Amino acid sequence: MARRNTKREILISSFIVILAFMILPLPTPAQAQEKPEDRSYLDIVGKVTGLGLREEGAYEILRKLVSVGPRLTASPGAAASVEIMRQIMQDLGFDDVHLEPVTVNRWVRGETEKARIIGSTLVGSVPLTICALGGSVGTPELGVTAPVVEVRSFGELKALGEKVRDRIVFFNRPMDRTLVQTFWAYGGAAEQRVRGASEAAKLGALAVLVRSLTLRIDKFPHTGLLTYDPQAPKVPAAAVSTADAEFLSSLLKKEKEVRVHLELSCQNLTPVPSANVASELRGSDRPDEIILVGGHLDSWDLSVGAHDDGAGCANAVEALSLIKIAGLKPRRTIRAVMFMDEEFGGTGGRFYAADERRRGEKHLAAIELDSGGFLPVAVGGGKPEVFEKLKKWEYVFKPLGITTMRPGGGGVDVAPLAAQGTALLGISPDSQRYFDVHHSGHDVLESVHPRELELNAITLAIYAYILAQEGI
Amino acid sequence: MARRNTKREILISSFIVILAFMILPLPTPAQAQEKPEDRSYLDIVGKVTGLGLREEGAYEILRKLVSVGPRLTASPGAAASVEIMRQIMQDLGFDDVHLEPVTVNRWVRGETEKARIIGSTLVGSVPLTICALGGSVGTPELGVTAPVVEVRSFGELKALGEKVRDRIVFFNRPMDRTLVQTFWAYGGAAEQRVRGASEAAKLGALAVLVRSLTLRIDKFPHTGLLTYDPQAPKVPAAAVSTADAEFLSSLLKKEKEVRVHLELSCQNLTPVPSANVASELRGSDRPDEIILVGGHLDSWDLSVGAHDDGAGCANAVEALSLIKIAGLKPRRTIRAVMFMDEEFGGTGGRFYAADERRRGEKHLAAIELDSGGFLPVAVGGGKPEVFEKLKKWEYVFKPLGITTMRPGGGGVDVAPLAAQGTALLGISPDSQRYFDVHHSGHDVLESVHPRELELNAITLAIYAYILAQEGI
Repeated sequence: MARRNTKREILISSFIVILAFMILPLPTPAQAQEKPEDRSYLDIVGKVTGLGLREEGAYEILRKLVSVGPRLTASPGAAASVEIMRQIMQDLGFDDVHLEPVTVNRWVRGETEKARIIGSTLVGSVPLTICALGGSVGTPELGVTAPVVEVRSFGELKALGEKVRDRIVFFNRPMDRTLVQTFWAYGGAAEQRVRGASEAAKLGALAVLVRSLTLRIDKFPHTGLLTYDPQAPKVPAAAVSTADAEFLSSLLKKEKEVRVHLELSCQNLTPVPSANVASELRGSDRPDEIILVGGHLDSWDLSVGAHDDGAGCANAVEALSLIKIAGLKPRRTIRAVMFMDEEFGGTGGRFYAADERRRGEKHLAAIELDSGGFLPVAVGGGKPEVFEKLKKWEYVFKPLGITTMRPGGGGVDVAPLAAQGTALLGISPDSQRYFDVHHSGHDVLESVHPRELELNAITLAIYAYILAQEGI
Repeated sequence: MARRNTKREILISSFIVILAFMILPLPTPAQAQEKPEDRSYLDIVGKVTGLGLREEGAYEILRKLVSVGPRLTASPGAAASVEIMRQIMQDLGFDDVHLEPVTVNRWVRGETEKARIIGSTLVGSVPLTICALGGSVGTPELGVTAPVVEVRSFGELKALGEKVRDRIVFFNRPMDRTLVQTFWAYGGAAEQRVRGASEAAKLGALAVLVRSLTLRIDKFPHTGLLTYDPQAPKVPAAAVSTADAEFLSSLLKKEKEVRVHLELSCQNLTPVPSANVASELRGSDRPDEIILVGGHLDSWDLSVGAHDDGAGCANAVEALSLIKIAGLKPRRTIRAVMFMDEEFGGTGGRFYAADERRRGEKHLAAIELDSGGFLPVAVGGGKPEVFEKLKKWEYVFKPLGITTMRPGGGGVDVAPLAAQGTALLGISPDSQRYFDVHHSGHDVLESVHPRELELNAITLAIYAYILAQEGI
């Protein structure tokens, strides 16, 4: 036995060595510092990283934020989120914690939201899991009942022409799952949700059902904004879960006519007052030059919007907190702005850019995090001419496992600043899991990983601090 | 209202444009092909990627594998996994599906496994969530009851010296959560689990409790192998959950003496016959030159080992499947090997390397996936001199979002092949979530994301195919 154990022990001792070798593709602290000429910020990177990862700061901020529940624009939850964010930033001792008024869109889902296949000879009467799209009008009180016509594109819709009159159009183009980057898959299918209702209404359709924008097949409908073309009648529109979209589609292949009854009580109401919330670390040297970091405070109402965009808000606050507790004194002002009403078109961002307070301020750069709180995989350096100036900072992100800096950046709420010459930058998290949760009941705190979230906050803190020190 | 809608429509229309701009940091298909001189394999990369992502092939293989339950070496579940893997590979039409005999270690957990703080003046009698470490001897039938001494390092242990005699030593060094790469944090704490029992026994300790190797604070103990030094008495050893490690540690700060009662019925039994399972795509040109891809079939017994290493097995099989259904004909043989008994020291890997069948075969390269099925973030090109030859292939991985190829690679089961001159390569998945589940009850199918898993399989297929065509 002794001999067998000796052999085993040797093997096991070598286990740790083998493990270390096996994981060499990951950057070691030494490898990350491979450019000796560029080390000026690496001590700061190390310090901020250590401070960030030793606790779950961003996650704790997020936990507080989502404790108010869903934050649909103009809802009581949204109002609560303004106050809780104000309190969090005040408690952290940031400078100039304040609200900026915004008049926001108000849309309410109402109590009734249901759809049902009726009178099918094959399946009888079967409910469908649906939710109204944001901005949709409701149905008449007794609902809409009509045969369903399935299409996969606006081209198919137009080819059908008059055949969709008095029908419910069912847009069933799936996101293209063969694309590695799921944002491209989303971009390729989102027009159905955004413009489908009006395109169908122009041909006389009574309502639309849109396949949920997710790569998962499940029973969770995913909402999101639609926009009505003023040239078309406004017809009600709902997202149908992917599982039920598949079911409905298969039924349509077997049965000549499938009728659906749809009832929605949602409605657009008068705009109401709300607010963006902002605070900052005042610049020691050039306080009127601003590096803006932010997210949007409003969410959809089907869950607490932990990723969209609780994560962006939490990370912006945590980034300022990390800079502060690291004892760093930014030369320019680093401002965290939580925008209201992104989901209904970016109202908060427009108010912010146009606000009287912007006079005398120069926004050098803006980074809005609004792509989920997953592992950061790339940093966006703005337009190509801006990226040329910023790409020398690529080395600071390597210790965080981010090996790529590329042109790109932006965000719905910071887009209006571009007209003032602000560079729109970005941080890209991995996208594989985002559309599993996006705009659905899945976007809950448990879908966020504390370390993945924190790595975004650390990346943001480092990026913002360097921009505040160096300018562009 | 019409005017407001028009404004909104313009804003929403610009939403898609803004979205596209926002995500520019992600590589577009065009950007991924930025090196026109190096495009020779990009069509194949695109084809394999499309085939992989259109379904959840790796996930479906994994689902079948884990349907047999946990696969502890020498358990009925492990035997079932051999047969199900054989069937899966046969059904996929691979060449030469066969078993290779291995004599494996047999350790059983037994029915009794409990620990309890007893007679505390502050908390009374409180159970602790624990599990025996793999390879541990059991306690005497009535258990071990002794005061607990907490240490954080072998240095602290040695400084205590005789003071640990007749005590239970509690190793409570946490993984260093400030390290971005969690494998390094694991490497920095694993010696407590691997060598702690014998180091404590040398000083007269009766048993050891080891803080679970995870960054989570929860009630799930994480097991893993220990090794006994033949020069020391064999004492029982158990992992304690991090939540209870924190609790026990805080109690030890308040109370002069904390006694724990530990009962384990685990035991090491006689080795038994088992098997590795292998199959291949026979090379058209140089069939005796092998590119090995693989994982280990055995798991721990606390869950189904979906990541460790169900993911590695599923990805190896899926990689061959993708190459086959893409209609690719490798010049050299690509062989998938599922090794048995990695967790007790890599028995299957040693048997494989030494098997009679290896005569006349030359293993050019081996890639064992055994770091979880998370998003692949880097590719390992072997030792520096091998990497120099392989780094020209970095471009093929960029369309998959993998921007980095580095030296490195290996794996417990393929390590014995190094003596034959085999290049040990690797694929590194992101590590942030791995130790949440590693060796614990959390390592379940639901902790694996189908797309993240598939991206590993696609990466492996591409890497293996290029190696089969080009050699090293």
